[in-house]
Amino acid sequence: MEYSGSAGRLLESAGAEIGDIVEVQNGDERRSGILMPHHDFSGPDMLTLKLANGYNIGVRVSGETKVRAVSKKEPRGRSKPVLPRDPAKKDVAVISTGGTIASYVDYRTGAVHPAISAEELVFSVPELTDLCNVRAKVLYSILSENMKVTHWQGLAREVANELNSGAVGVIIPHGTDTMGFTSAALSFMLTNLTGPVICVGSQRSSDRPSSDAIMNLLAATRLCVESDYAEVAVLMHGESSDSYCLAHRGTKVRKMHSSRRDAFRSINLEPVAKVEGPNISFLTSYNRRSAGPVGLRDKIDGNASMLHFYPGFVSEHFDLIAQKVKGIVVAGTGLGHVSEEIVGSIGRAVADGVHVFITTQCLHGTVNLNVYSTGRDMISAGAVPLEDMLPETAYVKLMWAMGQTDDPKELRKLMLTNIAGEFSQRRAV
Amino acid sequence: MEYSGSAGRLLESAGAEIGDIVEVQNGDERRSGILMPHHDFSGPDMLTLKLANGYNIGVRVSGETKVRAVSKKEPRGRSKPVLPRDPAKKDVAVISTGGTIASYVDYRTGAVHPAISAEELVFSVPELTDLCNVRAKVLYSILSENMKVTHWQGLAREVANELNSGAVGVIIPHGTDTMGFTSAALSFMLTNLTGPVICVGSQRSSDRPSSDAIMNLLAATRLCVESDYAEVAVLMHGESSDSYCLAHRGTKVRKMHSSRRDAFRSINLEPVAKVEGPNISFLTSYNRRSAGPVGLRDKIDGNASMLHFYPGFVSEHFDLIAQKVKGIVVAGTGLGHVSEEIVGSIGRAVADGVHVFITTQCLHGTVNLNVYSTGRDMISAGAVPLEDMLPETAYVKLMWAMGQTDDPKELRKLMLTNIAGEFSQRRAV
Repeated sequence: MEYSGSAGRLLESAGAEIGDIVEVQNGDERRSGILMPHHDFSGPDMLTLKLANGYNIGVRVSGETKVRAVSKKEPRGRSKPVLPRDPAKKDVAVISTGGTIASYVDYRTGAVHPAISAEELVFSVPELTDLCNVRAKVLYSILSENMKVTHWQGLAREVANELNSGAVGVIIPHGTDTMGFTSAALSFMLTNLTGPVICVGSQRSSDRPSSDAIMNLLAATRLCVESDYAEVAVLMHGESSDSYCLAHRGTKVRKMHSSRRDAFRSINLEPVAKVEGPNISFLTSYNRRSAGPVGLRDKIDGNASMLHFYPGFVSEHFDLIAQKVKGIVVAGTGLGHVSEEIVGSIGRAVADGVHVFITTQCLHGTVNLNVYSTGRDMISAGAVPLEDMLPETAYVKLMWAMGQTDDPKELRKLMLTNIAGEFSQRRAV
Repeated sequence: MEYSGSAGRLLESAGAEIGDIVEVQNGDERRSGILMPHHDFSGPDMLTLKLANGYNIGVRVSGETKVRAVSKKEPRGRSKPVLPRDPAKKDVAVISTGGTIASYVDYRTGAVHPAISAEELVFSVPELTDLCNVRAKVLYSILSENMKVTHWQGLAREVANELNSGAVGVIIPHGTDTMGFTSAALSFMLTNLTGPVICVGSQRSSDRPSSDAIMNLLAATRLCVESDYAEVAVLMHGESSDSYCLAHRGTKVRKMHSSRRDAFRSINLEPVAKVEGPNISFLTSYNRRSAGPVGLRDKIDGNASMLHFYPGFVSEHFDLIAQKVKGIVVAGTGLGHVSEEIVGSIGRAVADGVHVFITTQCLHGTVNLNVYSTGRDMISAGAVPLEDMLPETAYVKLMWAMGQTDDPKELRKLMLTNIAGEFSQRRAV
């Protein structure tokens, strides 16, 4: 954003533009740094400078302030960076969807732009090309909270195409907010994988010294190039520090912190793999590469809802939603319970042909509707418990399963079949 | 449940009843144990015996099986146990609400009954009366998934009464499913506490050797009698083993596992206290006993809803609910985000006078709507972010705050004021 007001006038008279190195003098105090774009939340008398240490500061200007353009920014190249293919290296596809990680960093201004071309995206992490030939593509450029079923489908088709045309793995830069939903959707849609399909995000934008983007992308690349792993996964930092990365099974992973770099956690299962520098170690059993080709089952019926039960949940509200959808995943309390009023709602919904499946909002542990009378009443009402499947995974799977079959018995069978590791191997059957 | 079929006929001819010690002989194999009630999920030819080691086994009967009643069960005493008051000991109130922990165990049959009298409840843990005089009362006898706002209110009134009439603390045996909601509600309703108010549950029914009920009740009693602690808390096992218990602040605790004994976890805060045998250690700062009297702010307006955002959330469904309620807590993704369609729904709801507050479904970490454009749009639409408050706590607090004031500005101020530790002291303001 351009500067206006007093700050804007000062810059104009100094001939200074965003991206230039400027010196700002207030009395005896002088600060030098790259002039950053104006911040929405700053006043019109504030300049933002990026200091040499990488951090931004705000400097207030007044009638006495002097601004000097120390050096002009370097013109940004218009020509696309060239990425020659090295026949000695394997091909890895990078299909970008958006989010913090897929931002192009203008190192001169420090500003974060959405990735505007495939080559620029890869160019921002030149170390990738030491490990492999990168086939980069920007499929979407959206914040992940705006991901929809159709995005998942388009992404699955691209992934299958890339793997079936020789890529040894696919890396999907993705916003972290809904990355676990996307990884679950891909897990159900793709079969017979010939290589890993790794959703990668970052919790710190790349213009910060603490960014986790590069380490996560490199670790994902190593899994693609140097292992026999062939599952859909989420790969992020394993600790808050830059010590190692963890790959989590796509159906067993959830964002469990709003901002930490190790926000993603495997639930009811160990992470699948640890990548520490060049070393890959597997922590669970995993699927190995198939001979191909990769299969695609991308029909999804999005007419479903996920409802979290809580004390005071009004059964009329449940009924309102149930009348609008074909399937509901309930995240019940404890072993999967709901109140007796909501048991009634479940019974009415099932009688109307709505598919109702039960998970637990505890997230950890297994649903069991055989222990208490409430659970037995829920089963009598027609609800189907889903063991230790995450509520989010169950919701995605339900939409996918409704896309696969119209037959209620087939649907139920599909929901209870372990398609992509969504039930733990430690399942209590 | 009585036995029927072949098992029932065998028992009848042997004159054996549930609770008797019986010997069952199949060929050369003889098993002896207490005859347990018939299990719903067993076939009609299965007998269940509780062995001397405390475990139950199923024994199949056939035409050749012989059953002998070794000894008849002891008649259960009808007279209430006498609990004389010891003037040298402090008084602790036990207000039971139901759940596994409040079950009366018939040690002869091993069957679990709901607590049918205050004295029986206390009598099931005789160690309690070594530490204090127990004032026991069964207020409710319900599964906690059926707890409602009116139950919270009745409970708060009982707690205030007990503390204001000399009890040094109150222990609330409670079903674990919604115990965190109840502890949050009590945290907001009770002021100026003169002693701790401790919700206690158990994850194993008391007829199992692994029950956690007694250790949890004893640890809660120690906090009441031997500390200066005066907050609403949830106290449960700190580990899966019987090593120690943890007291969690009532507004910062969540059931994070469907079945483990250490299912309850403090979120965004350390547990407040650790109780290991007779030793109490505090892990955070905490409120000490006031001189009293305890205050009661028990008005609650239950006309609120909690909605978890997910990809594919239909804005029309959000609108349907929003038209029914006065307030909504949204559990957004990541830093608190929702899709652009739901931002629209939030704007419409706020324009209609609905109070909309934002939390994160990550559970851990803080909401921040100033980082990305989505968040800024949500603020423009009128949503109010609630920092690191748990979604469940925010939902309870919203209903409580709507009971305290009709003024939107006052309500917002109340929601953003740290009433009962619902914002961490590490809050990012």
